Amino acid sequence: MRNKQDNIEIRAPYLIFVGAESRPDMAKTGRGLVEWRPELCKGQLRLSNDAVDLGLPDLTLELARDIGIKSLVIGTASVGGAIPEEWYEVLLKAIRLGLDIVAGVHTRLCDTPFLREAAENSGVRLVDIRVPPSSIPVGSGRKRSGRRLLTVGTDCAIGKKYTALVLEREMKKNGMNVDFRASGQTGIMIAGQGIPIDAVVADFLSGAAELLSPDNAPDHWDIIEGQGGIFHPGFGAVSYGLLVGSQPDAFVVCHEPGREFISGWEGYRLPTVEQVIERTTAIGSLTNPNIRCVGVSLYTANLSAAQRREAQEDITRRTGLPCIDPLIDGVGRIIEQMNSEFPPVPDQSQVSKAV
Amino acid sequence: MRNKQDNIEIRAPYLIFVGAESRPDMAKTGRGLVEWRPELCKGQLRLSNDAVDLGLPDLTLELARDIGIKSLVIGTASVGGAIPEEWYEVLLKAIRLGLDIVAGVHTRLCDTPFLREAAENSGVRLVDIRVPPSSIPVGSGRKRSGRRLLTVGTDCAIGKKYTALVLEREMKKNGMNVDFRASGQTGIMIAGQGIPIDAVVADFLSGAAELLSPDNAPDHWDIIEGQGGIFHPGFGAVSYGLLVGSQPDAFVVCHEPGREFISGWEGYRLPTVEQVIERTTAIGSLTNPNIRCVGVSLYTANLSAAQRREAQEDITRRTGLPCIDPLIDGVGRIIEQMNSEFPPVPDQSQVSKAV
Repeated sequence: MRNKQDNIEIRAPYLIFVGAESRPDMAKTGRGLVEWRPELCKGQLRLSNDAVDLGLPDLTLELARDIGIKSLVIGTASVGGAIPEEWYEVLLKAIRLGLDIVAGVHTRLCDTPFLREAAENSGVRLVDIRVPPSSIPVGSGRKRSGRRLLTVGTDCAIGKKYTALVLEREMKKNGMNVDFRASGQTGIMIAGQGIPIDAVVADFLSGAAELLSPDNAPDHWDIIEGQGGIFHPGFGAVSYGLLVGSQPDAFVVCHEPGREFISGWEGYRLPTVEQVIERTTAIGSLTNPNIRCVGVSLYTANLSAAQRREAQEDITRRTGLPCIDPLIDGVGRIIEQMNSEFPPVPDQSQVSKAV
Repeated sequence: MRNKQDNIEIRAPYLIFVGAESRPDMAKTGRGLVEWRPELCKGQLRLSNDAVDLGLPDLTLELARDIGIKSLVIGTASVGGAIPEEWYEVLLKAIRLGLDIVAGVHTRLCDTPFLREAAENSGVRLVDIRVPPSSIPVGSGRKRSGRRLLTVGTDCAIGKKYTALVLEREMKKNGMNVDFRASGQTGIMIAGQGIPIDAVVADFLSGAAELLSPDNAPDHWDIIEGQGGIFHPGFGAVSYGLLVGSQPDAFVVCHEPGREFISGWEGYRLPTVEQVIERTTAIGSLTNPNIRCVGVSLYTANLSAAQRREAQEDITRRTGLPCIDPLIDGVGRIIEQMNSEFPPVPDQSQVSKAV
């Protein structure tokens, strides 16, 4: 397969390592795995009582080994992606007990000599999810066949991966020809393939995005997991490259009503949904002049039911677009909007799959 | 120094290697060195009579060695930055003759085992200019002291580095407190320091741009070399990250009147100067709401004098901004515009340097 990662193979079941991370949005890798691959997640390892609880049994490394767990998966994504020093003792112990270590942080496990040596001695593997393919071309801007939807956001950790996964699941249920395309560590762990777009060398960003969603059948949809946010002072360039290289026909804006500032960048106000639609359309038009927004997906865990309904109605009134909470409403109304804006294409080779 | 590259040290004088490259815009590294460091460039090595002529004596490797040349500097920048296979023989011969090899291509010389082995055997060095610092933070968006100007462009290879270097030279002559900040291979070779921004991992793009122009005195200007183009389908993400991280107060648009398409991306029309001003202002406002364009710098080698004057008058009429050809007019009118838009700041510690 063209965008299959080399050597990505994770041995199940997993023990999810949360460290002492107390911020739920920083534990999104662990939460994503529990949500989308619950059958593989058998326990969690937390270094503090304040650490995020993923709802899994708290296991020691010894217990995990005894019940047959094969991999310790690092379930947090710290800013900058380094491995905190206080983790090394835990990782070394896990290695000595015979567990593989799986990580998506920027600092590669394999680049840490004492971890590599310990792994070699124990016969276990260090699995670095965040290693992009070795040969990525510069983005060509060439129009590819098939259809694409990109999830974008007013911030990081606001539902882009989740919305994309729900879209794939519901479109599949509807008999549509669709693939989720993972661009980040958790998505890659869930999908078993993808390209860690934020780990690509800058010159090849849009080229990597082009590889991620190759030519496909006319009726095929790639649902591409977005990254960062086009108004994000740290990660906006990644969002730009992913947008231009994905050349999406459609995009969905992910948003949390009531979030005032970019998370972790408190001097920066969250952009409005309209600002994100306008800027995404403007930049995306470079490689797909026909780009348009097909809906808004809200994260509303911190709202009452009344506040949620009000936020949804307000956004639909302002944008004229379906606005859903994927957890509560599903994404059916966004799929309807997609099918209305992009009528299904009859494809002779795909007749049995077409709606 | 904060943004000094590790281990960048080039032994002079140089033999500039052009290969068989016949497109002048692809030989910009060699041309830049000849222009800005003529005293160090003693010869050129071309593999074909059609190859770009830098105006230096054509030397064989043996002759170069005999007249005391110390380094073979690769003077071309191929798309994607790989080393063509037909160069290996030349590079190996140069190494055997005792010359250092200096390159800014993406494929690192040091990652090519047989070159590394040959260099070790001959006691010469392989100097990779395009290796970013090992520890770059994520962009913070924090406001830095001092003033910044970024050169941007309607395309690659359209005068961004040249304009920045002329600005630094003329501002220095005027007694202003100014530094050229190199973001690309040629700029780094000329300045002896900088960060190769297009070689940085995507997540750290704006963080690298922040490192490149650190806090400075209130009256100090960083003149930052731009990269790519904000409407470029291959490299726009690099331009975005450099813009957001540089948080420039001022920018200059570099443009070639008459160039119709993005060079090498023939399906993509060149944006207009106004489009680049509008988009750069919109994106740059994220980290500097006060950003504004202070002039337009033209590359007019392919125009008659009458066409050049017409293009300049047309752009000034359309934008209300000074429009110069730095080769012919210098950049005095842009500096006047900068001083009018950003009046000189009296700084007690810098009184003797202030205008």
